[in-house]
Amino acid sequence: MTAGVPGRGEFAVIERLKHRLPGPPEGEVWIGDDAAVLGLGGSPVLLTTDMAVAGVHADLALMGVDDLGWRAVAAAVSDIAAMGGRAVHVLVAAAGPPTTDLDVLSEGVAEAVAAHGCRLVGGDLSNASEVVVVVSVTGVIEGGPGPVLRSGAVPGDHLLLTGPVGASAAGLRTLRARAASSRRPESGGEALVEAFLRPRARLAEGEAARLGGATAMIDVSDGLAADLGHLAEASGVGFRLEQVPVAPGATVEEALGGGEDYELVFAAADVGRVTAAFAAAGLAPPLVIGTCTAEPSERSWDGREVPKVGWEHGWA
Amino acid sequence: MTAGVPGRGEFAVIERLKHRLPGPPEGEVWIGDDAAVLGLGGSPVLLTTDMAVAGVHADLALMGVDDLGWRAVAAAVSDIAAMGGRAVHVLVAAAGPPTTDLDVLSEGVAEAVAAHGCRLVGGDLSNASEVVVVVSVTGVIEGGPGPVLRSGAVPGDHLLLTGPVGASAAGLRTLRARAASSRRPESGGEALVEAFLRPRARLAEGEAARLGGATAMIDVSDGLAADLGHLAEASGVGFRLEQVPVAPGATVEEALGGGEDYELVFAAADVGRVTAAFAAAGLAPPLVIGTCTAEPSERSWDGREVPKVGWEHGWA
Repeated sequence: MTAGVPGRGEFAVIERLKHRLPGPPEGEVWIGDDAAVLGLGGSPVLLTTDMAVAGVHADLALMGVDDLGWRAVAAAVSDIAAMGGRAVHVLVAAAGPPTTDLDVLSEGVAEAVAAHGCRLVGGDLSNASEVVVVVSVTGVIEGGPGPVLRSGAVPGDHLLLTGPVGASAAGLRTLRARAASSRRPESGGEALVEAFLRPRARLAEGEAARLGGATAMIDVSDGLAADLGHLAEASGVGFRLEQVPVAPGATVEEALGGGEDYELVFAAADVGRVTAAFAAAGLAPPLVIGTCTAEPSERSWDGREVPKVGWEHGWA
Repeated sequence: MTAGVPGRGEFAVIERLKHRLPGPPEGEVWIGDDAAVLGLGGSPVLLTTDMAVAGVHADLALMGVDDLGWRAVAAAVSDIAAMGGRAVHVLVAAAGPPTTDLDVLSEGVAEAVAAHGCRLVGGDLSNASEVVVVVSVTGVIEGGPGPVLRSGAVPGDHLLLTGPVGASAAGLRTLRARAASSRRPESGGEALVEAFLRPRARLAEGEAARLGGATAMIDVSDGLAADLGHLAEASGVGFRLEQVPVAPGATVEEALGGGEDYELVFAAADVGRVTAAFAAAGLAPPLVIGTCTAEPSERSWDGREVPKVGWEHGWA
């Protein structure tokens, strides 16, 4: 889902709507986090919806509709990962021109659903003049503390990242270079292309972060700089970066501004406890990238201001 | 959501997908009914997703984007009503060209959510070359028997309808006639236009039908003839109609073939028990329109075959 940051495009519409509507009861979270937290049947249920539009989120000259379907599922499941939840059910609404091969699109959706350990339980199909896929995902919280919101970080918390970023953006650059070249494409870059076409939500990492005491968490969907900004704003803290881990083959700009890596960035007081939780889950330790500060306007890296990069989908 | 009827357009894609995927555990219902029935947090949760595309499901020359938003919410909530559930949470993914007034669209969505006693808990927005709205709704079952599927009718069951049908299709006809006329529009038809632009899901009626012993239920979204056909096919029964209740101002063809009335049609063994449950909820009694028969191919009305009318959205 989308964050609520007033004054800009889609976020402004959501913010205006949010302020006209009734707010959630105690224990629920509605508009403004990665997923909604709902009371249904006694225990908290996570629910999110995410939209992928050809020409906005995906260029069908560079990927198949199966890739578009996979990416839409991964993006929505990642919202559940960013709460520390386990994704359970997936519903898919898909539309496209009559020439769209819906069986191929469904194949990509089904593969992504299986790869993330979920189940496809329903959906809807329609004609449309362009390909649109909307994925809704349910999730549950299993054991330990409740869902990790964006808003719980406090000054002094460490900032951690589940892995280097920028691979997806570098994969897009690789595909564009291949498409623009009349020569036979150079080999290499397959891992980057795979990161772009077939990203994976970090469900195990999100759960380990929650069990390890994460105070706030968000997935890197709009770019590390932008998403860290969302987390800091929701928590009312600033941040000071010590390092920006760049995926092999990517640039620093791609690491800071490239979206759709779906690594998770989170805040936590005790790095040792986090590392132990990751080890208990058989995961490599997350990377410490900085700290939360008491000055909400601070967005620094190595003494300089973090460049404003990253994107807002649509309506700009 | 959509039914699974092999061999035609969108239904064929869903059917092929369904047969390649794992099926639900005991007590859950996935692809193929109005809404999915899911085990989440102990008690059954209903979940559905429904897509409205301008130019396919709605003509923006005849309605505003607020109407489109309202109709998308009503259509999805109606899937919960058709299970006998109470609709609880709504998520909306909306896209459109930059000229789309998203505040107006949101207004229609928010009004419909409030009118159906639900809460808007999240969503996503994007650019797209045409207006697309996807609504996902959660629901719960409160007291009495479990959710009413399409598949439980048996020969001898009565068929009941919560109200006359065809008003929505007649409202569309009225709007088209006004648009085609160069003269000042004639008065009248406001109730029909309202039925088309601002339909209401029959949540109270669906719950009363469930409490009154409904064995199978579906909402009239594709037309009475088509939707009765879906119910009969899922249940493995035929049907014999005694009457087709036509809304004032509508034609018999509109009553049989017009979708989007969102009245509910259901099967039940005991009309007296159904009527008592409707009376207990302060509702007028539903209309007995026929009976289920043992011959699955029977689709009769007054000794003749029910004409094949109604529509399949998209991909035809």
